[in-house]
Amino acid sequence: MGLPFEISKTSDAGGRRGTLRLPHGDVQTPVFMPVGTAATVKAVPQATLEQIGANGAGAEMILANTYHLTLRPGHELIRRMGGVHRFMSWTRPMLTDSGGFQVFSLAKLRKVTEDGVEFRSHLDGAKHFFSPEHSMEIQIALGADVMMAFDECVETPATWQRTRDSMGLTHAWAKRSKEYFEAHKHEVPWATLEGRHSERSSESQYLGLSESGAPGLDSETWVPTPLQIFAGRTQSLFGIVQGGMYPDLRRESAERMVEMEFDGYAIGGLAVGEPPELTREMIARTLEFLPRDKPRYVMGVGYPDQIAEFARMGVDMMDCVLPTRAARHGLLFRRAEPGEESSESGCPIHAGSIGMGGMSEEVSSETETASRTAIRMNIKRVEYAEDQRPIDPACACPVCQRYTRAYLRHLFMAREPLGATLNSIHNLAFYLDIMERVRGELAGLT
Amino acid sequence: MGLPFEISKTSDAGGRRGTLRLPHGDVQTPVFMPVGTAATVKAVPQATLEQIGANGAGAEMILANTYHLTLRPGHELIRRMGGVHRFMSWTRPMLTDSGGFQVFSLAKLRKVTEDGVEFRSHLDGAKHFFSPEHSMEIQIALGADVMMAFDECVETPATWQRTRDSMGLTHAWAKRSKEYFEAHKHEVPWATLEGRHSERSSESQYLGLSESGAPGLDSETWVPTPLQIFAGRTQSLFGIVQGGMYPDLRRESAERMVEMEFDGYAIGGLAVGEPPELTREMIARTLEFLPRDKPRYVMGVGYPDQIAEFARMGVDMMDCVLPTRAARHGLLFRRAEPGEESSESGCPIHAGSIGMGGMSEEVSSETETASRTAIRMNIKRVEYAEDQRPIDPACACPVCQRYTRAYLRHLFMAREPLGATLNSIHNLAFYLDIMERVRGELAGLT
Repeated sequence: MGLPFEISKTSDAGGRRGTLRLPHGDVQTPVFMPVGTAATVKAVPQATLEQIGANGAGAEMILANTYHLTLRPGHELIRRMGGVHRFMSWTRPMLTDSGGFQVFSLAKLRKVTEDGVEFRSHLDGAKHFFSPEHSMEIQIALGADVMMAFDECVETPATWQRTRDSMGLTHAWAKRSKEYFEAHKHEVPWATLEGRHSERSSESQYLGLSESGAPGLDSETWVPTPLQIFAGRTQSLFGIVQGGMYPDLRRESAERMVEMEFDGYAIGGLAVGEPPELTREMIARTLEFLPRDKPRYVMGVGYPDQIAEFARMGVDMMDCVLPTRAARHGLLFRRAEPGEESSESGCPIHAGSIGMGGMSEEVSSETETASRTAIRMNIKRVEYAEDQRPIDPACACPVCQRYTRAYLRHLFMAREPLGATLNSIHNLAFYLDIMERVRGELAGLT
Repeated sequence: MGLPFEISKTSDAGGRRGTLRLPHGDVQTPVFMPVGTAATVKAVPQATLEQIGANGAGAEMILANTYHLTLRPGHELIRRMGGVHRFMSWTRPMLTDSGGFQVFSLAKLRKVTEDGVEFRSHLDGAKHFFSPEHSMEIQIALGADVMMAFDECVETPATWQRTRDSMGLTHAWAKRSKEYFEAHKHEVPWATLEGRHSERSSESQYLGLSESGAPGLDSETWVPTPLQIFAGRTQSLFGIVQGGMYPDLRRESAERMVEMEFDGYAIGGLAVGEPPELTREMIARTLEFLPRDKPRYVMGVGYPDQIAEFARMGVDMMDCVLPTRAARHGLLFRRAEPGEESSESGCPIHAGSIGMGGMSEEVSSETETASRTAIRMNIKRVEYAEDQRPIDPACACPVCQRYTRAYLRHLFMAREPLGATLNSIHNLAFYLDIMERVRGELAGLT
């Protein structure tokens, strides 16, 4: 029983308009997934996530981080809470990463062997060990709709031989990931909810939609009712293509992954410091060797122009911390106006992605740069102090509909928490709008 | 042209059910006003503030701090932005304090003379000077519906003579405040909006309610349209009764203030470290000497039981940072269940109220204490780690309708910004619900 993925249109350039049918709902592709690192898209309430973006459709799918959640609050706790969907009250599709990239970004705190990776927590220095089997065990406990095979991400630059050795490890780990997944996928917390709770009250009670407003719960014995009934469905597992910046290795990795037959394929190890032309080239050289009928996911990208470009090339799924992280640092995206200077951006997005402090130099720079579709505004600049315009006069998000640049600058300068919330809502809406426009382009093909 | 205040019912104990008709709308009294220190109720979006609480009516009136706003972003900037309502996009009534209490809490950073108070900013140490005239000038620039006479707040404990001298200063400053206000009240930013903007587009465009979703603004010349048209109305000025913990001085202060004829009367200098019985007694001994037909406002209170009690005694307006500040420290209020232990709380709420770090010992304590109507929960306690109940099963707020204690604990422990937002929303809804119940009690009188 594969993952249902229907493609309605394909452009000459390879871009695809599709629908991914996951246990927690359908997702219109190409899709951008906001990152909910610790079971929360930082500073944004779930109800807002459900409403922002084009047509008020909200984010259809979000990502959560295996590494962060296993450290805190722990995947066994989340399993007991019914999985991360129920834990955070998010009823739509989710994806978890494998923890591999996060551990990779710990650099000196880790030790890689054939068996797995030993590392120290960035929170308290405690030793942990991730193997392919353990990553699967954690991801099944978390219960996202899509989970990722455990991989190693190679540093940049790396030699061909170093990259090939690392890739070999990724392939061996992918095989072990799949074997563990197939043997244990029935253990996902929500797989058994139907039986356990079939006699219980309706979804609307759990979600608080009852007429009375008050749930009227028996506080001693209350157990949440299931969010949805999953008729025998399980999670899906995606493989991750590695191969660094070497097209021959990318091809070899893609072919090996396809032989193993995953539900979808990710392209990993990009946006780690290479120039954007190279990111694009590696994606193009990998897509050639991925099957056309399965979803293709590029992990950890990118800037607004990049996500549009990659979607047009045939990438179906992307995620990135950039819109929310930039927002917390006062960097806002808006549409370019006619005549505004345009230039391409290209710097590491991921560098230092563990913890909240890591903001790459480029993202936090004082300068504002433009690109084909997006201008970056640094809201702390004095020129915005009395600017009564919204961030982006062409944006329909709730922030642009209500607040001025002057107010957002004040919130940022006064370090008011509302600033991070409003900035994040706008940047996420901006990203979701871009993908909606690309979906519209692809759907409009004759 | 006085401030319209209609009282529909009065209880034997003196509690009043009323309606305060302010330029930005009607307020049902008794009312609790959330504190929006720096033109934001910390961590809570304005749209949420408009919706929480009993019947989804939201907060009908909020408070902003003169001291904080004049330091950052500056009252002249806010004046140029059309006043604090428009600056923060809050269309409902607001009140500004005089800055007197905030300066009082700076303790060693201030120097009081008959002319006014010299103090150093807690932000950068820069010297500032507040006089009654300057406080009025600032508050007119901010443009809240209700502004407060400039006062001195005496330390606790203080001798009778020290308290009387300080009170004398407050009376002199109240007189100067009123004189300045009467001479300058026409300068409020929104007084002239009608004329300036009458030819411009409708309110719905500014608020983003247009059908298209996109405001379609000319980005070069766009000026916000007025939120409301104010038919010749101006702000109201309230006097502040001082007198420390001495009933005779409270009486004298009340009588002097009433002679000066303000639009309403506040009772200041309470909740500064005295036991709650004394707070209550001072309020009772002051209310006796305030006119029954004018609104009465107790500043800076209180715990949930206190706000209900004071409202039943005849207090019409209250404000307090407690629900939001406690929320950011993981302290949540919920209704007591039958049989839960009850005890009165009584500790300083205001102590150290400048800045965000100041949380009184009592509020941040590990212990949970109960009172007649409210239990305080410390969400970081391990007993909540897997607690799938909402904070308060009887609460209809959006947080209790969607999120578990387990999730809120996780957000707090992981220092996720969403935690402060959700905790604040619940605590504010809890306070608004209390006042709605008291209003219901008072309205139900025969």
